[in-house]
Amino acid sequence: MALLVETTTSGREYKVKDMSQADFGRLEIELAEVEMPGLMSCRTEFGPSQPFKGARITGSLHMTIQTAVLIETLTALGAEVRWCSCNIFSTQDHAAAAIARDSAAVFAWKGETLQEYWWCSERALDWGTGGGPDLIVDDGGDVTLLIHEGVKAEEVFEKTGQLPDPSSTDNAEMQIVLTIIRDGLKTDPKRYQKMKTRIVGVSEETTTGVKRLYQMQATGTLLFPAINVNDSVTKSKFDNLYGCRHSLPDGLMRATDVMIAGKVAVVCGYGDVGKGCAAALKQGGARVIVTEIDPICALQALMEGLQVLTLEDVISEADIFVTTTGNKDIIMVSDMKKMKNNAIVCNIGHFDNEIDMHGLETYPGVKRITIKPQTDRWVFPETKSGIIVLAEGRLMNLGCATGHPSFVMSCSFTNQVIAQIELWKEKTSGKYEKKVYVLPKHLDEKVAALHLGQLGARLTKLSKDQADYISVPVEGPYKPAHYRY
Amino acid sequence: MALLVETTTSGREYKVKDMSQADFGRLEIELAEVEMPGLMSCRTEFGPSQPFKGARITGSLHMTIQTAVLIETLTALGAEVRWCSCNIFSTQDHAAAAIARDSAAVFAWKGETLQEYWWCSERALDWGTGGGPDLIVDDGGDVTLLIHEGVKAEEVFEKTGQLPDPSSTDNAEMQIVLTIIRDGLKTDPKRYQKMKTRIVGVSEETTTGVKRLYQMQATGTLLFPAINVNDSVTKSKFDNLYGCRHSLPDGLMRATDVMIAGKVAVVCGYGDVGKGCAAALKQGGARVIVTEIDPICALQALMEGLQVLTLEDVISEADIFVTTTGNKDIIMVSDMKKMKNNAIVCNIGHFDNEIDMHGLETYPGVKRITIKPQTDRWVFPETKSGIIVLAEGRLMNLGCATGHPSFVMSCSFTNQVIAQIELWKEKTSGKYEKKVYVLPKHLDEKVAALHLGQLGARLTKLSKDQADYISVPVEGPYKPAHYRY
Amino acid sequence: MALLVETTTSGREYKVKDMSQADFGRLEIELAEVEMPGLMSCRTEFGPSQPFKGARITGSLHMTIQTAVLIETLTALGAEVRWCSCNIFSTQDHAAAAIARDSAAVFAWKGETLQEYWWCSERALDWGTGGGPDLIVDDGGDVTLLIHEGVKAEEVFEKTGQLPDPSSTDNAEMQIVLTIIRDGLKTDPKRYQKMKTRIVGVSEETTTGVKRLYQMQATGTLLFPAINVNDSVTKSKFDNLYGCRHSLPDGLMRATDVMIAGKVAVVCGYGDVGKGCAAALKQGGARVIVTEIDPICALQALMEGLQVLTLEDVISEADIFVTTTGNKDIIMVSDMKKMKNNAIVCNIGHFDNEIDMHGLETYPGVKRITIKPQTDRWVFPETKSGIIVLAEGRLMNLGCATGHPSFVMSCSFTNQVIAQIELWKEKTSGKYEKKVYVLPKHLDEKVAALHLGQLGARLTKLSKDQADYISVPVEGPYKPAHYRY
Amino acid sequence: MALLVETTTSGREYKVKDMSQADFGRLEIELAEVEMPGLMSCRTEFGPSQPFKGARITGSLHMTIQTAVLIETLTALGAEVRWCSCNIFSTQDHAAAAIARDSAAVFAWKGETLQEYWWCSERALDWGTGGGPDLIVDDGGDVTLLIHEGVKAEEVFEKTGQLPDPSSTDNAEMQIVLTIIRDGLKTDPKRYQKMKTRIVGVSEETTTGVKRLYQMQATGTLLFPAINVNDSVTKSKFDNLYGCRHSLPDGLMRATDVMIAGKVAVVCGYGDVGKGCAAALKQGGARVIVTEIDPICALQALMEGLQVLTLEDVISEADIFVTTTGNKDIIMVSDMKKMKNNAIVCNIGHFDNEIDMHGLETYPGVKRITIKPQTDRWVFPETKSGIIVLAEGRLMNLGCATGHPSFVMSCSFTNQVIAQIELWKEKTSGKYEKKVYVLPKHLDEKVAALHLGQLGARLTKLSKDQADYISVPVEGPYKPAHYRY
Repeated sequence: MALLVETTTSGREYKVKDMSQADFGRLEIELAEVEMPGLMSCRTEFGPSQPFKGARITGSLHMTIQTAVLIETLTALGAEVRWCSCNIFSTQDHAAAAIARDSAAVFAWKGETLQEYWWCSERALDWGTGGGPDLIVDDGGDVTLLIHEGVKAEEVFEKTGQLPDPSSTDNAEMQIVLTIIRDGLKTDPKRYQKMKTRIVGVSEETTTGVKRLYQMQATGTLLFPAINVNDSVTKSKFDNLYGCRHSLPDGLMRATDVMIAGKVAVVCGYGDVGKGCAAALKQGGARVIVTEIDPICALQALMEGLQVLTLEDVISEADIFVTTTGNKDIIMVSDMKKMKNNAIVCNIGHFDNEIDMHGLETYPGVKRITIKPQTDRWVFPETKSGIIVLAEGRLMNLGCATGHPSFVMSCSFTNQVIAQIELWKEKTSGKYEKKVYVLPKHLDEKVAALHLGQLGARLTKLSKDQADYISVPVEGPYKPAHYRY
Repeated sequence: MALLVETTTSGREYKVKDMSQADFGRLEIELAEVEMPGLMSCRTEFGPSQPFKGARITGSLHMTIQTAVLIETLTALGAEVRWCSCNIFSTQDHAAAAIARDSAAVFAWKGETLQEYWWCSERALDWGTGGGPDLIVDDGGDVTLLIHEGVKAEEVFEKTGQLPDPSSTDNAEMQIVLTIIRDGLKTDPKRYQKMKTRIVGVSEETTTGVKRLYQMQATGTLLFPAINVNDSVTKSKFDNLYGCRHSLPDGLMRATDVMIAGKVAVVCGYGDVGKGCAAALKQGGARVIVTEIDPICALQALMEGLQVLTLEDVISEADIFVTTTGNKDIIMVSDMKKMKNNAIVCNIGHFDNEIDMHGLETYPGVKRITIKPQTDRWVFPETKSGIIVLAEGRLMNLGCATGHPSFVMSCSFTNQVIAQIELWKEKTSGKYEKKVYVLPKHLDEKVAALHLGQLGARLTKLSKDQADYISVPVEGPYKPAHYRY
Repeated sequence: MALLVETTTSGREYKVKDMSQADFGRLEIELAEVEMPGLMSCRTEFGPSQPFKGARITGSLHMTIQTAVLIETLTALGAEVRWCSCNIFSTQDHAAAAIARDSAAVFAWKGETLQEYWWCSERALDWGTGGGPDLIVDDGGDVTLLIHEGVKAEEVFEKTGQLPDPSSTDNAEMQIVLTIIRDGLKTDPKRYQKMKTRIVGVSEETTTGVKRLYQMQATGTLLFPAINVNDSVTKSKFDNLYGCRHSLPDGLMRATDVMIAGKVAVVCGYGDVGKGCAAALKQGGARVIVTEIDPICALQALMEGLQVLTLEDVISEADIFVTTTGNKDIIMVSDMKKMKNNAIVCNIGHFDNEIDMHGLETYPGVKRITIKPQTDRWVFPETKSGIIVLAEGRLMNLGCATGHPSFVMSCSFTNQVIAQIELWKEKTSGKYEKKVYVLPKHLDEKVAALHLGQLGARLTKLSKDQADYISVPVEGPYKPAHYRY
Repeated sequence: MALLVETTTSGREYKVKDMSQADFGRLEIELAEVEMPGLMSCRTEFGPSQPFKGARITGSLHMTIQTAVLIETLTALGAEVRWCSCNIFSTQDHAAAAIARDSAAVFAWKGETLQEYWWCSERALDWGTGGGPDLIVDDGGDVTLLIHEGVKAEEVFEKTGQLPDPSSTDNAEMQIVLTIIRDGLKTDPKRYQKMKTRIVGVSEETTTGVKRLYQMQATGTLLFPAINVNDSVTKSKFDNLYGCRHSLPDGLMRATDVMIAGKVAVVCGYGDVGKGCAAALKQGGARVIVTEIDPICALQALMEGLQVLTLEDVISEADIFVTTTGNKDIIMVSDMKKMKNNAIVCNIGHFDNEIDMHGLETYPGVKRITIKPQTDRWVFPETKSGIIVLAEGRLMNLGCATGHPSFVMSCSFTNQVIAQIELWKEKTSGKYEKKVYVLPKHLDEKVAALHLGQLGARLTKLSKDQADYISVPVEGPYKPAHYRY
């Protein structure tokens, strides 16, 4: 794709796959709105007061139908928004088109190259001469990373005149990041420092991004306040768990039509994502085997009747392999060679390095047969036996299906909206330092409460006497901070 | 679509959507072969002896990837094959293209009109001047119906000179059937009678078709022997149950991306199909309510923790409605009007008359908004509230997804192959009269046995002493005919 | 126990463990009545007409609380009843006491010896000088066996003067049967022949007994009509399946308090009983492995995510072994020696020969440590390792717990009542020959219907139009005979 | 029971129901040891070094078989132990007898009066003239409460000469506590103050006790360090959840034999205990309705397909009611009056005030019919309709069954042993202040690890490179403190 920014008739910038899909996107957005009561309640509650008036928000988060409802909630509350996806395969092109046409500057399409991906990220941060965004919505932390790397490079350059050297790393993606920064430095050596000054804070969506933030907090390098949305109960215990329970089989079915019943499935990792995946596969009639490093999670798996073994134990016996770890090097090419013919290998954790895609792609004589986009059969020369890899090792639920369903994303994204409101409201109060924060429990409970009515639930009310007996306020929060749910 | 038969370079007739999808179809057929051990075993076991040498088989059965493997098993055993789909939405166009290019005469595409549908059925029966097919594979009995109606009309015409009158029925589909027969009568007044003479028998795939066959047997009007494949245990207790458990959520997800967890779902009917659907929805986290007429099935639902109510009891409360009854008039337009906004209504039973599509389409002022093919939102003028109807009321797993997965269809289709072999082998022996037969239990057990190895199962062997103790042969069959599994 | 018949103040004969438990038994019977709507409906519907007026019924069926409600339903309909248990461990002594005191002649206690068991069976058949019973309710067929063996021996004796020789068999139980018959012959050489003449028929409760009946029908040796209650859908698909799903874990918990979660459990046999057991263990968090001889049942297990292996494959790995086969020699002492220390071995199939108790008891040097009644640890001398055997290899749910719960037994026993009414009503009509019959489907559906109201279910009614469309009567029966549910 | 301390031949004090059950208790203890790998590993690891040499431990925790293994682990590590139960119905008398005979001073029997209960608690604290214990193992905090109330009263008495006045409260249990303290004050006015001085700390087992501790910490009245064992992951997410999933149906079955399938069950509260109960009931085939005050837990219930309503909504429809809240006044007598005949009401939360037992007992004209111990039918005079209350409103799994199974209690109790070792080891180091602590995560992970081998699990090992990538040590701990599992 030619990397040229386009402009709507109203003057808004964008770059999407196919603007003609905007009507289709709009129809699906309207359906999704009905399924996202938390976001719609935010529009009702906060819309009139326009809390984001004057705020510029840059988002880097899978550009799906659900995200479209998030974006239009932000704009309904007064924000100006620029957006990119945080994954090369996760964009739904009709969603991108509808938003680009109607609401915000979008730079995203399904099937970006890495080069295109970072170009889009740059565009989402590019608010013109006035500097960068006021607020960031991030997922996985790529935009936050870009800014931090940019500031670091500018400071080195300022002191030493030295430009970042892309060849200093053999991580393909980091090479691109450094190239972008290097090239930017030549035209504006203060770009990211200006951005840093303006940014009020970031709200981060997912485990991996949060981990990066805590590392930066620990080393004192975090440049602005961050809200850890991932660890809201209504995010990590819902989206990660119930979202994956829904979208893992969805991705498997759309990509391969494979019958899950009767199969042996290996789930690597039994955190929230792994729990959701294992539940879905078990319920679908598979025999599920879990691999784990953490004895507590391993014992949880056993209590659910799941076998806990090492990958090596089951490598030649299993039909489906799913990585959910957030770690790297989980399934190596040497493992893949031992698998049964047409074993399915996929990742729903975070980055594509959970699966050794590099090893697979560079394996001598390996042959790649693309069944359809995001579904490849890789045949090893020695055995003529093939494995099926989904979404090129990236998030299979977004690459092969449509990601998590609207209802559970409404929980996650209502946390995002609340976090953004909180950051913007406190922008001058000093309430938030350059640290990582989680939302207070009463807001977490509020997010849940906004989603009950639609499911026909009726909550019980504590009497004052009962509330006193268990030492909580009648209106909550009801649990201590350490409560695990 | 212009209804013109096309011809491959090798001279084979066909009519499909897009021949350029043949390569894609071939790739998916190759994947499916690995998942269909029963069919592949038939090729190995029977291929060398070419049992179908000289046999012409006409099939009317969803033209999917799995059916492609069935067709190529029939041709691998020596048959010549012509095929159409038994549902206007169930064809997978890439499967049709691959078969048309490589193996058999195919007349099928996704999204036929009813007119086109019956044209395709006629083509599948049209073996040229030599008359019709020797054998029929039928699903729902439409081809069998066409022949029986044709013969009946020809006999009336022969006696009275009277042509069938399409206006004598208000069933739109029967009007087309009668028109076809009427028009055919004019050119060849013995067409169906010649067919009847040649036909050795039919093997019928599904409950609805089987019911028609038993009715014809009861009234003495059945024109040739029939094997009821549906009631093989390895068909009805597998494909109907486990197939739907897989393909119902698949269809729901692809059509609507709706989160199943937390929803109230109504399953109308708790037979094998209903049991599979209810299990899938329950496992997906829905609260499932069953409607039933049969007290035994109702009690089964209760034992699984499902509530049994009438449709009326829950019409305004539920989010998802699924018909699985094989009956008609299950959900009427008057019901649909009472539903929640964006309630999902779909059918996985058999014909589209489970849902009152006619009533919906003709409701004054109703507005149809097509979100995407097979996913329509219908808005009632009084309430501005809409419901979402999948696949226009036809089989949603085939219309909105890809039908049942290969593995379970391998069970069903291995029964088909065995039934066809049996009919053809006994064509002159008189073993089969003009009645409906089920396959003997030892063949049913054989079908199951062919599918165990792939799932890593190891059967226990009876000792002679044990076999005598329970009075069965060491090699089976192991159960009495009335055993219910 | 001294084998002396006792007499109540009202002159009724009995032999139970402890008459002082009658009040406790009565309280539990009253609770059970609320849970047994089918039986209570029979009392309401048929009580006024006293259909059993003048009928003598002998029952041989686990003398539990639920059976007490059955017995009192029979007496409420006019019958005179004598009863014994069909299993040495299955009597609930408080139930026996209440019935003996209030309603019928009972000969049963928990923990009979085999000698005592057959003495009780004889007593239940002993209606004094007037001959035997009119009707038999049998479970496993022991009373039917006794009569058939008796008649056979009397006929031989009549012809040849030869007495049965207990030493002619090495089956301990058959030795006792032959001894009883031999001793009886000396005092009354026509006893069983007189019985045979009087008996109108038997209704048989369970798979094993039914199998014996069909064998006798096949060899032409069946002496009176039999109704196969086991194969009513509302019996075998409910009591066998849902009953065992309840009572297997109940027995395991009461006997051993073992945590099911995390364990590896082997279920031998995947028929209705095995399906119930496997479901219970899986739901309890065990990893379940099934052994099967029948490929169809094996494939069903696989579709539910259960592994199918041979006993040998898992003998040293599993924690819990359950036999459900109805066959013999399933777990041999040579298998038990290979098990883990404290592996649990139990049977919920039918006879104790599913487990090689004889081999275990006679194993040289084996040591039996009774933890509590029905829970024994057997230690092998070579390894000092022990296994835990429940209920001495007999039905563990009845030996270690209280058998199936009232509600599901109400389904089974309502079939019994209906079968008994049918036999008695048609005693002179010739409707039933010396063959095995199942109840007609409309009665089966009626049994189910009687149990719906209590669970809050509301059935849908077919319209006449719909009924015609699927060719069934509006009031049912709704399914063909071969339907499998 | 006469409240006299008895003495074994070896001079150890005790008071139990029946010393002749000691052999039976010993057999079951030996079985339990095989199921409690964590405790047995502690014996192996720590036994040789005798870490508790010289330590006096008082425990107040359900005197079951599992607790017996805990006690003998403490004594195997060198401790001297005195024990009472923390619930009037939870003692297993054979366990108490075996421990009393062989290992520790036990004061506990099943079915204590409240008076007896507190007498036992006093005895467990009574180490003779040398003062009280060094360490306390508490469950629910009753022993801790007694000491705190005692110290408070002594201080008041010291200052003002005023004795505690039992009539100052209308809580029956607190009246007894105050009476005991008052009477003790007369003979030794420094008793509890001496105790306080000696006590190194307490480890508390359960939610309710922990809540009390945090309240005392908040008000600065906590007299010694406390370790919150409840909130170890390997306790609250295992024992509370999986333990109740096992022991709720166990208690229901033993108490009532009720069939769970088909019933409507209400679970009040959806915390860990409620989650376990709801899972068990759902898997048993009940339709489960949850009541909740916390919107997050409510949303979790919905995601599992459970309906969330208020008690009022379902009071007259449900068959089984289970309280799991840890709060009071959940089911009032006014609710019970509205229930169906023979509805079952039970509590598995903590104290018996979850159910309004006082209101029930004092309801005018109510009639109590004891079916068997811990199973009472209460009949209301107006309706003649009865409800069945288990364990007099106290913990039904301990009152009606045997509590949680050994394996999961091994997790909990291994935490207890580790906590006690930690407190004792650090008794002079000042590491623990008068505050509430949780065990560090690496110990929590260790507890889990000790339980994996027995279940055949094999953990995956992180490479150094992977560990660095996710910033954890190779050997763990693997999760941040806030991780919810």
